Amino acid sequence: MTPRVAWPNVADIPAPPLTEDRTGFAVRRDRLRAMAVEHDLDAVVISSLVNVRYLTGFTGSNGALLLRPDGDDVLATDGRYTTQASAQAPELTLLIERACATALTAEAARAGVARLGYESHVVTVDGFEGLRAAAAEHRPGVELLSLGSAVEALRAIKDAAEIDALREACAIADAALAALISDGGLRAGRSEREVGRDLDNRMLALGAEAVSFETIVAAGANSAIPHHRPSDAVLAVGDFVKLDFGATFAGYHSDMTRTLVLGPPADWQREVYELVATAQRLGREALTVGASVVDVDAAARAPIVEAGHGAAFSHGLGHGVGLEIHEAPALSALGAGRLAADMAVTVEPGVYLAGRGGVRIEDTLVVGTDGPALLTMTGKELVAL
Amino acid sequence: MTPRVAWPNVADIPAPPLTEDRTGFAVRRDRLRAMAVEHDLDAVVISSLVNVRYLTGFTGSNGALLLRPDGDDVLATDGRYTTQASAQAPELTLLIERACATALTAEAARAGVARLGYESHVVTVDGFEGLRAAAAEHRPGVELLSLGSAVEALRAIKDAAEIDALREACAIADAALAALISDGGLRAGRSEREVGRDLDNRMLALGAEAVSFETIVAAGANSAIPHHRPSDAVLAVGDFVKLDFGATFAGYHSDMTRTLVLGPPADWQREVYELVATAQRLGREALTVGASVVDVDAAARAPIVEAGHGAAFSHGLGHGVGLEIHEAPALSALGAGRLAADMAVTVEPGVYLAGRGGVRIEDTLVVGTDGPALLTMTGKELVAL
Repeated sequence: MTPRVAWPNVADIPAPPLTEDRTGFAVRRDRLRAMAVEHDLDAVVISSLVNVRYLTGFTGSNGALLLRPDGDDVLATDGRYTTQASAQAPELTLLIERACATALTAEAARAGVARLGYESHVVTVDGFEGLRAAAAEHRPGVELLSLGSAVEALRAIKDAAEIDALREACAIADAALAALISDGGLRAGRSEREVGRDLDNRMLALGAEAVSFETIVAAGANSAIPHHRPSDAVLAVGDFVKLDFGATFAGYHSDMTRTLVLGPPADWQREVYELVATAQRLGREALTVGASVVDVDAAARAPIVEAGHGAAFSHGLGHGVGLEIHEAPALSALGAGRLAADMAVTVEPGVYLAGRGGVRIEDTLVVGTDGPALLTMTGKELVAL
Repeated sequence: MTPRVAWPNVADIPAPPLTEDRTGFAVRRDRLRAMAVEHDLDAVVISSLVNVRYLTGFTGSNGALLLRPDGDDVLATDGRYTTQASAQAPELTLLIERACATALTAEAARAGVARLGYESHVVTVDGFEGLRAAAAEHRPGVELLSLGSAVEALRAIKDAAEIDALREACAIADAALAALISDGGLRAGRSEREVGRDLDNRMLALGAEAVSFETIVAAGANSAIPHHRPSDAVLAVGDFVKLDFGATFAGYHSDMTRTLVLGPPADWQREVYELVATAQRLGREALTVGASVVDVDAAARAPIVEAGHGAAFSHGLGHGVGLEIHEAPALSALGAGRLAADMAVTVEPGVYLAGRGGVRIEDTLVVGTDGPALLTMTGKELVAL
């Protein structure tokens, strides 16, 4: 077994205060530093690019971070990003090397580090050989210890700047859907692909850096496929149309699903819709500080199971969302842990009736002591177009 | 050190013939099988999703492949993809499990495998612990041996279906650029971002599944930044405009760069352009079967170095392209190996003059015994709009 440190509950680690000369990134590094010191690590090498971004602000496609107890942190990247790294993380020492994590490991070993933390869920077997060789070359006996998902655990709890970015990303998605509908873009005769591109272009025009993931537009029977890719299938009167989409803003992802009906809804459509809407409301109401993620999933699942559609809700209730579209925590029967204030999560139950159609309703929310804050503001009443 | 098998030169492994009941995927699996048998591996687990797609046609977001000498190969994926996997890889045994590679390793161990190949450049340290535990549980003493990049080496040489897909992807990019220009979409006053979106939408409308990567539109001084992200900067008369973009078709990526001038080119612009065009021609001409990738890079680099701009050509000459936008081989001073027939590569020298502007010209080509086949057909004369 890879030696592994056991982290305390992330929510128990107090965030050092922001001061004028310390950015949010410095605060995040200090929280990780406190965890490292507590576990007698002499330094930590971060290899995950998204974790490097979270801890430094650096957005290049190659980079790693060396975090040290004395605060002399080093950002490594290659020559393409010298200017960008200096601009995005001016307070960090910069090391220009192609093999970033290896170079930082060598640097740590040279500086006398004996216990070095690394990300065993990110570093490949080959990459680990490189780290081990670099350490051994500069200081025999350096111990490489798995950090586990320590940074992902920190990332689960959002700071104010992160929540602002998520709020803006959600607002872009809300505005794009509103415009799509009011301009008549959701109508019989258009293909799923056309609708998807229209929605994507509206998000980009409204300031999205990118779309959060490949937009799902699923009409009629296709709406019963949870992750349908937009096809040339044409929207028809009487169809459920399921739209699952999001925008990124400052690196943060929004995630929202709405299901509408083209024309007057049939009784079965109303029934399924109301069932999913009820489940979704119960899921949102279960988002309380301290709630177990398993219980939150169960709260939303209960009415669906009771209605005999348990097997037709074939996925977890939701997931954390931030710099990645799927991140900690998982709201699922297979998840673990409890909710903490300022976790950003989705709540997205669905019922899928093969061959007929399906409904999913999804919001992005932030857990708080006064109940969850809703970031996706589009209404959830059944809309018939 | 991780135990590692030493592969023969991929180009030396004959491709078994296609027959009526064997798809191109079966041929690819048979080539890998031949390599595995030659190295006394009892089975191989493929974890890389793109390698799984290459060997099976399966395109889901979770999957792994168990390849066995007797040909009873198993594709593992989770419940979301049961229908899709059966449709895309009907000839394979299907195993439905969330932890795909772990489940296949357990299956191999149960079946008596003693020497199991795995992808050490893809599997993380944590993932490897999972494989090792699964193997040990079902058969003590199973040896896990690194395959290295065996599948990536196979992928470097394209078959006819792959070249057709690349050709179509390139044709889409060519047509999109032609339409952008003829419709007046490249003009002073538009922002880089607007031009980028316009080009992307044209590719999607022409049948691209997606864009190959974030389209680069770099105007004026921004064209001197090799990998500039489109910004709100506005195109102006006298600017170089560098466009680096591509389309995906059937999973295959095109990659093309053209640099144009808005209005009559200045003398310095003509000079830089002609220099890069000469370098690019020399690079294309150096694409011969058996040429060392280092020599191909050097052939294109020579005139740029001679003109005193060696430092301003700050990247490699090109890269393989296929199911990934960057794959083997690397055409670079840091690369290794020789070109073989049916390798698909880019040739993309550039000269970047900080604060003034830069030029890059890039084609996608296929190496062949009668010289390279050009897949990107847009002309390379200096265009002044």
